[in-house]
Amino acid sequence: MIHPQQPSGMPTAKYVPFQDQIEVHLPDRTWPDRAMTKAPRWCAVDLRDGNQALIDPMDSERKMRMFKLLVKMGYKEIEVGFPSASQTDFDFCRELIEGGHIPDDVTIQVLTQSRDHLIERTFDAIRGSKQAIVHFYNSTSVLQRRVVFGMSQDGIVDIALQAARLCRKLEETVPETDVYYEYSPESYTGTELEFAVRICNEVIDVIDPTPDHKMIINLPATVEMATPNVYADSIEWMVRHLDRRESVVVSLHPHNDRGEGVAAAELGYLAGADRIEGCLFGNGERTGNVCLVTLGMNLFSQGIDPQIDFSDMAEIRRTVEYCNQLPVHERHPWGGDLVYTAFSGSHQDAIKKGFEDMDKRAKEAGTAIDALDWGVPYLPIDPHDIGRSYEAVVRVNSQSGKGGVSYLLKAEHGLDLPRRLQVEFSGVVQARTDAEGGELSGGQIWEMFADEYLHAEVADARWGRFSPVRSTITGSDDGTDVIDAVVSVEGVETAIHGRGNGPIDAFTAALATLDVDVRVLDYHEHALSAGGDARAAAYVECAVGDRVLWGVGLHESIVKASLRAILSAVNRAERGTLVEG
Amino acid sequence: MIHPQQPSGMPTAKYVPFQDQIEVHLPDRTWPDRAMTKAPRWCAVDLRDGNQALIDPMDSERKMRMFKLLVKMGYKEIEVGFPSASQTDFDFCRELIEGGHIPDDVTIQVLTQSRDHLIERTFDAIRGSKQAIVHFYNSTSVLQRRVVFGMSQDGIVDIALQAARLCRKLEETVPETDVYYEYSPESYTGTELEFAVRICNEVIDVIDPTPDHKMIINLPATVEMATPNVYADSIEWMVRHLDRRESVVVSLHPHNDRGEGVAAAELGYLAGADRIEGCLFGNGERTGNVCLVTLGMNLFSQGIDPQIDFSDMAEIRRTVEYCNQLPVHERHPWGGDLVYTAFSGSHQDAIKKGFEDMDKRAKEAGTAIDALDWGVPYLPIDPHDIGRSYEAVVRVNSQSGKGGVSYLLKAEHGLDLPRRLQVEFSGVVQARTDAEGGELSGGQIWEMFADEYLHAEVADARWGRFSPVRSTITGSDDGTDVIDAVVSVEGVETAIHGRGNGPIDAFTAALATLDVDVRVLDYHEHALSAGGDARAAAYVECAVGDRVLWGVGLHESIVKASLRAILSAVNRAERGTLVEG
Repeated sequence: MIHPQQPSGMPTAKYVPFQDQIEVHLPDRTWPDRAMTKAPRWCAVDLRDGNQALIDPMDSERKMRMFKLLVKMGYKEIEVGFPSASQTDFDFCRELIEGGHIPDDVTIQVLTQSRDHLIERTFDAIRGSKQAIVHFYNSTSVLQRRVVFGMSQDGIVDIALQAARLCRKLEETVPETDVYYEYSPESYTGTELEFAVRICNEVIDVIDPTPDHKMIINLPATVEMATPNVYADSIEWMVRHLDRRESVVVSLHPHNDRGEGVAAAELGYLAGADRIEGCLFGNGERTGNVCLVTLGMNLFSQGIDPQIDFSDMAEIRRTVEYCNQLPVHERHPWGGDLVYTAFSGSHQDAIKKGFEDMDKRAKEAGTAIDALDWGVPYLPIDPHDIGRSYEAVVRVNSQSGKGGVSYLLKAEHGLDLPRRLQVEFSGVVQARTDAEGGELSGGQIWEMFADEYLHAEVADARWGRFSPVRSTITGSDDGTDVIDAVVSVEGVETAIHGRGNGPIDAFTAALATLDVDVRVLDYHEHALSAGGDARAAAYVECAVGDRVLWGVGLHESIVKASLRAILSAVNRAERGTLVEG
Repeated sequence: MIHPQQPSGMPTAKYVPFQDQIEVHLPDRTWPDRAMTKAPRWCAVDLRDGNQALIDPMDSERKMRMFKLLVKMGYKEIEVGFPSASQTDFDFCRELIEGGHIPDDVTIQVLTQSRDHLIERTFDAIRGSKQAIVHFYNSTSVLQRRVVFGMSQDGIVDIALQAARLCRKLEETVPETDVYYEYSPESYTGTELEFAVRICNEVIDVIDPTPDHKMIINLPATVEMATPNVYADSIEWMVRHLDRRESVVVSLHPHNDRGEGVAAAELGYLAGADRIEGCLFGNGERTGNVCLVTLGMNLFSQGIDPQIDFSDMAEIRRTVEYCNQLPVHERHPWGGDLVYTAFSGSHQDAIKKGFEDMDKRAKEAGTAIDALDWGVPYLPIDPHDIGRSYEAVVRVNSQSGKGGVSYLLKAEHGLDLPRRLQVEFSGVVQARTDAEGGELSGGQIWEMFADEYLHAEVADARWGRFSPVRSTITGSDDGTDVIDAVVSVEGVETAIHGRGNGPIDAFTAALATLDVDVRVLDYHEHALSAGGDARAAAYVECAVGDRVLWGVGLHESIVKASLRAILSAVNRAERGTLVEG
């Protein structure tokens, strides 16, 4: 028999099921019969709700990088900070306005608690902007009313109404700004629906929006407390009971405590919401805010224009990782390193047949493949649409007892390849072994790796246009480095000179004098742990012209290893047999 | 005005909306009115569906670690491999059975395609087991029927029926094994429901299950193609149309292409399924399988016993990261490094008030806090229930322009702390500054760090029982290292000796002779990038007795840096003022 599971012994009794805390009753719900047909209004809150949840919050340079990315992608509503609570946020808001960084068709949003002096400071922050959304909130949940505020429902309503009245009054102090409002009953998911709709309707009454000048009512899953269908029911209930629906934009702000933030956003949108707030790759407090990349790409994969441009996913991810100083996981939907990779042989086979079928259909119809309906097993979209290729990763057959290519390079040679380099190199391996099949030995893999990346190390095996000869680096007091290097260019020793912020920057500047266009995008290095080997390994991801690829260098000196890695990438870019990662 | 979003220019026209591919029509659905009340039957497929998606598939040692973890957590159905497709899987299956590693109340499951020679080999693999589930599948989707198989519906049904008949026949060859069956119409989400139910019912008819000896019908979202309510509708439709419902266990197997695998599993379970297949922390092809940790903890947080023990979340995560060689993301629900951390001041304040309220209620009721209903804002569960503490991370106020503690240690001292050490050290900072408040200077943070971790480096500041004096390491031909070290123990130079697999292993063995119980759980090191500094930094996460904590060492020699890091951890464990991470 199949034996039943046993009690875990975990202390379940102390947790109250959601349905015993908050009643959401909507048996005549209509949302499950709907499907999405167009993009919602998006609001990107990376610079506020995301930023506050970072171990290392963004400095102004990172903030500006994030802002410009969001603008470039097509977001028109961007929450830029909590200026009354943070001088950095205030200063950034002023920099955006005074520096003219906000395009005319972009609206900044600023968050504030519902307290007089904070609201006043908030209006100081937005002065001079063409338009702005003032987003005020207070917490409304049963738990917070009792534990944090010790207030009745009436007291909580008064906080919100006083804030709304002060906002309307302060509008006069910023006559050049078209001010919009957003109100959030914070901790909405822990609030009785009757109370949530009461406080929202009273706020709406004070703000007095019109169909031509709407206000936003934002209903956050501050903590995700139930399955997403319950959130959707609550949204449909609210939409039915909110006053002046034609003057109100209903907005969602899901968090992801139960791992269902994406579903909550989509089902809530089906339930009648108009707008969704979230962060790129789901950054935010605890488990994060709902992921705007996933939501947008989910629409795209259904043939619906997300009105956001995800075509350069690698650049989006790189910027987000730089700004947040947190990685995007390998399996993150649509953007992770491994999500267009099929390891299973039967998957690889089906994908191959799918591509063949696309080719055949295109020939028969006399059209380009892009003109056909997409249909390849295990690939929900064409990876090319976001700048990716289909990466079939060769598994070194585990019969060999060694595991994958990367494991082997690590175990036998002490090389700990960054994830994207692993993927790139697996493509190199596959391209060279497609014809041969079967297993690969460790020695064969090492030869391929050395030939592909380490040509600069072994004189006999050199094939690249460039190889290193010598270099001297001088640091100056103002932090810039100056490099005087000699590199061999097609066998001719050539002196180059450059300066920059660090040796790598100086070296790429020096290479530019040889008309080599290379930028370093990512960088890793480590000491080789193999006993007695005092060398360091450097890995650089470079943009060489319009290609993105990796280079590797080994050397006793960390600096020289880096310079070799850059030459490795430049040589590879010119080799022309590349498998792009 | 708030300007509307613009077309993205992405090629949306080539994608067909799900509802135009597959019709799922169930206006009288009943699942949205239900709530979960008990755990489903779980099946952990980490060793098969998870393992096949790894860059570095598990070797037999890793497989055994994963199997033992799953058994210890309480899983009773464990898919252990695809033995007919992989010799490694076959051998592991035999090792489990012949080595007596399968507890009597655990049932192994093995996967096979519906092909004669593979099914025969599968029965060879399970021979001698007390009970086993033979899981056979073939692909049924519209796309795969056309592109991969070039077959009509009848041809696809024949494949499944021939497999079912062969299975029943081969049962006779394993008389000592109680054989159960699972059938999956693979790529179910791309299959017309009428065809899916036809093929399942015909398979059920051949297998001929009874209420006392049921078979499993597994309905995989091989690729997640629609919102999770559509999957739930399809499951409720299937449950209504499957024959012999009392003899059939309906199983779900969601993937996560749209980031909604957890929601699909929960809504599908509400829709009448009995059983869920998934992987710990959502490993699996592309975006992964549904995460069993999230599903289990979601139940737990609603007061429902998951029948799986998550009380040592750190150990679960460590083992999964070791076996999969992939990280668990910082924001992964319930298990990520940052998910019980509040960065926002208002969140920290509300949490503090929540804890005070719990204390007060416990006093008033004369009970322990654990006897009360849990209710702390922003903390959906008590982190202690899974072996975690509430980690409030101090943000160095960004007015200082430096960002967080870790950023500062990296920028000013070249130290790149591993994530869990960052969290630990933030706790140390907070514990020491709770009383003082305000901002911290870089110098103050560095002093705290040096005092806490680097006591061994600075003779004047030493406070630990142990400090390093000198050591000699000798490698031998068989790969073991022998260490002869002198350490200062309360100021007395003491010679110790040990051997092990590498210097660290040898050193912990040597320390054991002083009755120091230390095991190294995780290890990172890097060269210090600060100019002219030839030193390396080593970070070790150690179990010292029953505590888990980090140590840090700096030294020109990578090996000596590691040994210092171990002494750092041992000293800290004895210090007694620890904030546990």
